[in-house]
Amino acid sequence: MEQVDLNEKFALFDEYWTPKIAGELNGQYVKLAKLKGEFVWHQHENEDELFMVIKGSLKIKLKDKDIDLNEGQFLIIPRGVEHLPVAEEECHVLLFEPKSVLNTGNVKNEKTTEKLDII
Amino acid sequence: MEQVDLNEKFALFDEYWTPKIAGELNGQYVKLAKLKGEFVWHQHENEDELFMVIKGSLKIKLKDKDIDLNEGQFLIIPRGVEHLPVAEEECHVLLFEPKSVLNTGNVKNEKTTEKLDII
Repeated sequence: MEQVDLNEKFALFDEYWTPKIAGELNGQYVKLAKLKGEFVWHQHENEDELFMVIKGSLKIKLKDKDIDLNEGQFLIIPRGVEHLPVAEEECHVLLFEPKSVLNTGNVKNEKTTEKLDII
Repeated sequence: MEQVDLNEKFALFDEYWTPKIAGELNGQYVKLAKLKGEFVWHQHENEDELFMVIKGSLKIKLKDKDIDLNEGQFLIIPRGVEHLPVAEEECHVLLFEPKSVLNTGNVKNEKTTEKLDII
């Protein structure tokens, strides 16, 4: 058992839209991801998802509004809600979600990451 | 659905060792707590627990070692592991744990908080 330093972990990878597993508890993963640009509209049928911005800022587009997230802010997106993350500049986020979550939810494309690395 | 700003939420309360519910997802709570001083040795039989330091620093004493947590660091304490949080100065932490968790785990005393406020 040891502490996890977010900045040290973020320094270990450069890829965007490729969540890394930084912790596991109660059937959930703590994931870290670097985001830049626009992702893909998707939803998770059975899982709520938390985005917390550690560095930079992130826009979460929803069908009826946009939500801006800055450092020190988080958003919980309930299951079934379509969303599109957009990061104008590089953004570092922490995700909390069940182990079963696929990053692109109900969509499979070139951004889908089936197997996540542990860092 | 709206974003949660950690600093805004921490400004809403002053009590120590009294976690507040700041979010709920997948049967888990995101809780915020201000800590100062020494808590009580306890363990959670069925729940893993995550402590993330948002401000200040926190020592988690375990039976075989101490782990120091600073801003931007988290620790996952597996179920069944006895621990004692100690904060020399006021410390702000985010907790992520199942809704069933009682703050003092297997111990009940004056620090036990049965019903948590939502902030």
